[in-house]
Amino acid sequence: MGVTQVIIGVPKEICPGEERVALTPANVGALLKKQGVEILIERGAGEAAGFTDGEYENAGAKLVDRDNVFSNAQAILQVQTPGSNTTNGDKDLDNLKADQFLIGMTDPLANPQFAQTLAEHKVTGIALELIPRITRAQSMDVLSSMAMIAGYKCVLLAANASHRMFPMNMTAAGTLNASRVFVMGAGVAGLQACATAKRLGAIVEAYDVRPAAREQILSVGAKPVELDLDTGEAEGSGGYAKAQGEDFLKRQRELMTEVIKEMDVVVTTAAVPGAKSPILVTADMVKAMKPGSVIVDLAAERGGNCELTKAGETVVENGVLIIGPTNVPSSVPFHASQMFGKNMENLLNLLLDDNGDLQLDFEDQIVADTVISHGGDVPQARLREMLGLP
Amino acid sequence: MGVTQVIIGVPKEICPGEERVALTPANVGALLKKQGVEILIERGAGEAAGFTDGEYENAGAKLVDRDNVFSNAQAILQVQTPGSNTTNGDKDLDNLKADQFLIGMTDPLANPQFAQTLAEHKVTGIALELIPRITRAQSMDVLSSMAMIAGYKCVLLAANASHRMFPMNMTAAGTLNASRVFVMGAGVAGLQACATAKRLGAIVEAYDVRPAAREQILSVGAKPVELDLDTGEAEGSGGYAKAQGEDFLKRQRELMTEVIKEMDVVVTTAAVPGAKSPILVTADMVKAMKPGSVIVDLAAERGGNCELTKAGETVVENGVLIIGPTNVPSSVPFHASQMFGKNMENLLNLLLDDNGDLQLDFEDQIVADTVISHGGDVPQARLREMLGLP
Repeated sequence: MGVTQVIIGVPKEICPGEERVALTPANVGALLKKQGVEILIERGAGEAAGFTDGEYENAGAKLVDRDNVFSNAQAILQVQTPGSNTTNGDKDLDNLKADQFLIGMTDPLANPQFAQTLAEHKVTGIALELIPRITRAQSMDVLSSMAMIAGYKCVLLAANASHRMFPMNMTAAGTLNASRVFVMGAGVAGLQACATAKRLGAIVEAYDVRPAAREQILSVGAKPVELDLDTGEAEGSGGYAKAQGEDFLKRQRELMTEVIKEMDVVVTTAAVPGAKSPILVTADMVKAMKPGSVIVDLAAERGGNCELTKAGETVVENGVLIIGPTNVPSSVPFHASQMFGKNMENLLNLLLDDNGDLQLDFEDQIVADTVISHGGDVPQARLREMLGLP
Repeated sequence: MGVTQVIIGVPKEICPGEERVALTPANVGALLKKQGVEILIERGAGEAAGFTDGEYENAGAKLVDRDNVFSNAQAILQVQTPGSNTTNGDKDLDNLKADQFLIGMTDPLANPQFAQTLAEHKVTGIALELIPRITRAQSMDVLSSMAMIAGYKCVLLAANASHRMFPMNMTAAGTLNASRVFVMGAGVAGLQACATAKRLGAIVEAYDVRPAAREQILSVGAKPVELDLDTGEAEGSGGYAKAQGEDFLKRQRELMTEVIKEMDVVVTTAAVPGAKSPILVTADMVKAMKPGSVIVDLAAERGGNCELTKAGETVVENGVLIIGPTNVPSSVPFHASQMFGKNMENLLNLLLDDNGDLQLDFEDQIVADTVISHGGDVPQARLREMLGLP
């Protein structure tokens, strides 16, 4: 038995509707193989995702109450920290202590002020959304892993709401045509949406402003839709789409109207990190669609890619259903937690040294990009700029 | 222009939640090619299914109000007649006139009394559920076509509610196992459920008491589960499963418990026409399942194949979701109406002679099996027996 160097704590998520958990029993088992690590799990933390207290205990965790987690852990792991949980996350703020680590999603680009709040509390905050898109960090990239789940699930939401079956069927009572599905935005979520709709038998087309997306769209069995637009500058850093000017978007909308009116299902996934989502589907486009068609807007939380989207609601306009789901990954909580927990485990393996101490090497891009508060300051360059700090 | 011999009328469905329509514009167009046929459609009849009044008009129908349909049509076509619509179907009973035809679903084996009611009204009732399972009548078989839709949709309901993704995923954050889906009952709905779950990437197994189902299960890419049971007498007439004795069912349940506890999703489709559904999934079996597992019980309307099913509700027991959907085909109303309408069109083509007169040839098995009331009497042999008529 080594000496405990670090206590890692996982409280139960408190954000309404949040069913994921920051570590699974498998992650607990893996982390406890490291020297000097102890893990506290709040009772019931994994229940909504399908992981029982017994499984955590068998993996070697101590089951405790919430106060115990916050009082004794040196690192608090959350799916949604108070930075991303603007509903009731504040409750946890006073539980945090100086020199404690808080690792989880903080919505850093939409809520940069949270970095300052943590700095004031002298907490070391690590924002998982800022994991750089470099090869070495792929295994920690929660945005990618959650986007994969969201892309899958949004197609199920669409198929479930649709008045038509996705696959073609030739039956004794005639032929049913396959549904036509159009995916807007071909990032991780969009490509997974294409693949899922294709699996279900739909005719799938997809569009992305980035010319590089063409090959990726083809690779998941969908047909790239090409519009006559100047897209040379569409790809920003890190592989995300860049925000576009209004002229560009206007011309895009004109051409898109012709495409969209033929579709049975439209899935929009065009989110720009930290910014309001671009409107890709206007009210006029919705009017041109067939009654019984479905739009699922994965960007609903950031204002939506459809002009009529209401986050957390299903709007019916002219017979077209516009579904604006929020926190989609949480609706597949077992697999989403499995991926989130693995991302978290991989990050902790980077931060924990051989003695079980948490170390921050700011020469490492992963550390430099993700640590949003430390020693009472905000070290992260992009956030300093957003916050107007020198 | 020929002389109108028959006026066919399609009222809007009134049963709550019923979104299908008995004829689509395409069926109207096809039927109007026959000599002497005129078609009245109640305004808005196809709206919920995605067929506009304009489309019916373009196909040659007259758009009228409900009273006009019932007063002037010689044949009333409904998806749900007052026989199957026990909620508010009675409203239509007084609208029916002597010598009128009423063609639609009447739930004849569960509600044989309805045949007598129609006989008292001197209405000629045709129950689509009684279309015989013979090759010539396949194109009229609404039970098969609606079961196909229900089998597809129930898998979407399951996938949508599941805490896990169906397909296996190998990602930078580790491997997500494919979901295991178990389909009980391998009729049309069960086989379509297998095919749909397979498309989505799940590992699919299926069980049916009829030994003949084995090949069919294999043919849709699923693995047949075999239990050590004497199943020699399991197949009844018409390809449906026969009701089984209690000893047989008890042994089946014991063996089944072992199978079910490994599953992420269970879909049950074992309905026996006109009878209460057999209990295949007991409360004890549900207890043995993992939290976050899902049961979709397609037999919910007939009492359910799961002991805990509540029709029209989702019950959560021990972390297991038990979904008891009702009228599933109506939730895919466009394609369901397309199939229902084509079945109806094919039946009408059989009944209409070259002059556009409705003729009943009781020598024809299709007519003999489906006409439940005519000339003030109940001619159908099985119903006479159920009603205790000589």
